[in-house]
Amino acid sequence: MSVEQILEGLGRREPAALARAITLVENQRDGFERVLSHAHALIGQRGRARRVGLTGPPGAGKSTLTERLIQHYRAEGRSVGVVAVDPTSPFTGGALLGDRIRMESARLDPQVFIRSMATRGAHGGLATTIEEVADLLEAFGFERILVETVGVGQTELDIAGSAETTVLVLVPESGDGIQTLKAGVMEIADIYVVNKSDRPGADKLRQEVEVMLGIRRGNAFRHVTPHHRPDGTAPRAPDRAARAPAAGWEAPVLGTVAVTGEGVAGLAAALERHAAYLETSGTLVARRRARLAARTRAVLERGVQRWLAEATRAEELLAQRLDEVADGRKSPYDVAAEILDQVKAAAVR
Amino acid sequence: MSVEQILEGLGRREPAALARAITLVENQRDGFERVLSHAHALIGQRGRARRVGLTGPPGAGKSTLTERLIQHYRAEGRSVGVVAVDPTSPFTGGALLGDRIRMESARLDPQVFIRSMATRGAHGGLATTIEEVADLLEAFGFERILVETVGVGQTELDIAGSAETTVLVLVPESGDGIQTLKAGVMEIADIYVVNKSDRPGADKLRQEVEVMLGIRRGNAFRHVTPHHRPDGTAPRAPDRAARAPAAGWEAPVLGTVAVTGEGVAGLAAALERHAAYLETSGTLVARRRARLAARTRAVLERGVQRWLAEATRAEELLAQRLDEVADGRKSPYDVAAEILDQVKAAAVR
Repeated sequence: MSVEQILEGLGRREPAALARAITLVENQRDGFERVLSHAHALIGQRGRARRVGLTGPPGAGKSTLTERLIQHYRAEGRSVGVVAVDPTSPFTGGALLGDRIRMESARLDPQVFIRSMATRGAHGGLATTIEEVADLLEAFGFERILVETVGVGQTELDIAGSAETTVLVLVPESGDGIQTLKAGVMEIADIYVVNKSDRPGADKLRQEVEVMLGIRRGNAFRHVTPHHRPDGTAPRAPDRAARAPAAGWEAPVLGTVAVTGEGVAGLAAALERHAAYLETSGTLVARRRARLAARTRAVLERGVQRWLAEATRAEELLAQRLDEVADGRKSPYDVAAEILDQVKAAAVR
Repeated sequence: MSVEQILEGLGRREPAALARAITLVENQRDGFERVLSHAHALIGQRGRARRVGLTGPPGAGKSTLTERLIQHYRAEGRSVGVVAVDPTSPFTGGALLGDRIRMESARLDPQVFIRSMATRGAHGGLATTIEEVADLLEAFGFERILVETVGVGQTELDIAGSAETTVLVLVPESGDGIQTLKAGVMEIADIYVVNKSDRPGADKLRQEVEVMLGIRRGNAFRHVTPHHRPDGTAPRAPDRAARAPAAGWEAPVLGTVAVTGEGVAGLAAALERHAAYLETSGTLVARRRARLAARTRAVLERGVQRWLAEATRAEELLAQRLDEVADGRKSPYDVAAEILDQVKAAAVR
């Protein structure tokens, strides 16, 4: 399927074209940025979707919760696109969760599209690629987009945080509730869910989360410094300042039992409330603007990296100098400075 | 203290100069790359340290274990440098673990140097900065360097994985043992520790980890594909191919009770065995070479980003075009392409 055929197919809402477009974007093959640019135009024509990011520790039941949300939205007659980010083993390169049959019930419904993505070998660029896949789903016309990631590290939070509404899913038996809070990764969420809330310890965990959030709310007047990278450039998508919970939204702590569906309607209602809040408070416009700025910056950085790799002699020079670095004749800093000079000089060729 | 004074002070092994050098590097102030280049020369003169990375979920007892390892090394007469990476709240910007008094017993010993670093606002660049701080400790002459991070996400593993030996610390009550394994984040470790191993569930967790590692070993002939980024460039530090456990090392699963010191001598012995293995198998040379290549690449990328931010009109153009992106007249891809063209043209000015 050529890039032209993909663009036409996206326009006609053909699932095969969507699948091809996603593969093109995932692998950054020729023409992928043209497809994404076209997708942005389609989003402008077809209207925006609501994007929800779900994250939490492994085993918190995010997949089941996602499946329940799909069922909820389908019962309301809404179409749903899902990006499920599966961690892969860095050693074998295989998706260790690959054996799990994802969301059986949703697979045959044409109003549901689920794409699993592997984290395999991906670093900083992963968050951008996932957002771009979500763009394609949005351009295709799905009304709700769910982005599910596993883990509570910086990378995982970046991914979940690129959605308009971020949900953090915890479970009582993980026992890491208050530890996770202390680790400072929780305040990024707009909605907290204690899943498996029929199990012992669920009430205690909910209370702990509420107390922790209460402490934060008590500090509402504290000055929030925008975060910048050590090199002085602004942070990558999502913009952290734009992600700081705006005054006026008190993040709820909800209980669910995903396997039975208990509490899922309540979660869906909270998601609608948060969407309405974002809209009426003007936060949505600010977040989308920050997101677009961060995206443009990320795309530019990626373009510069590719240019560095393809159009300059950087890689060749690096290979040549590596022996000198390895045996201590030169430091990485000497060599990097030398290559940077060559890159600048080569730029107009 | 001027850069010259810092360089002289490092040469004379003055702790004040080390502290200043670290601050300079952390904040990437003028001259920081000169200091790092000098540090690499000092490492060449003074000999190499052994670097150990410790990571694991919050509450696994890594700090206590680190403290015990310090005591162990001090009893052997060795000096120890520690980089402790504390997670910070992305919202308040404050270190939420700041109230913890770290490693009380080690603070007054001149042969021990402990530096806490905040993850505040840091993204992809953090792993490089932490390695650079470890370089300074190595240049100063510490014989053992411990890098402690909290979390089991991609970022945290990148940090821990930049050491020659990576230790993953788990605890029975986290209940996430097998889930963490499934999440594919575990195979990166050279040594597994079940801390708090006097508690219920410790034996079960150890067995689970061993079974999981056994499965991996059974696949030892499986082809290991080197990981590359979607844009075709090689992955950032640490080089994943170089991190794949080499054939011949069977990662042990050890039990410790850090609060009492039980099992710490066993862990230290395993660390020595792994260091000896790295040396005799030739893996050490390969890993260091891969690490230096990855570092050079990271320093170059950072240099290009800084150049982009400072010496080109990229930021200015981005600000100008943002309205057009926000209201849908242009896509982030159009604007990024336009700015990239300007960057290339501006390079020789």
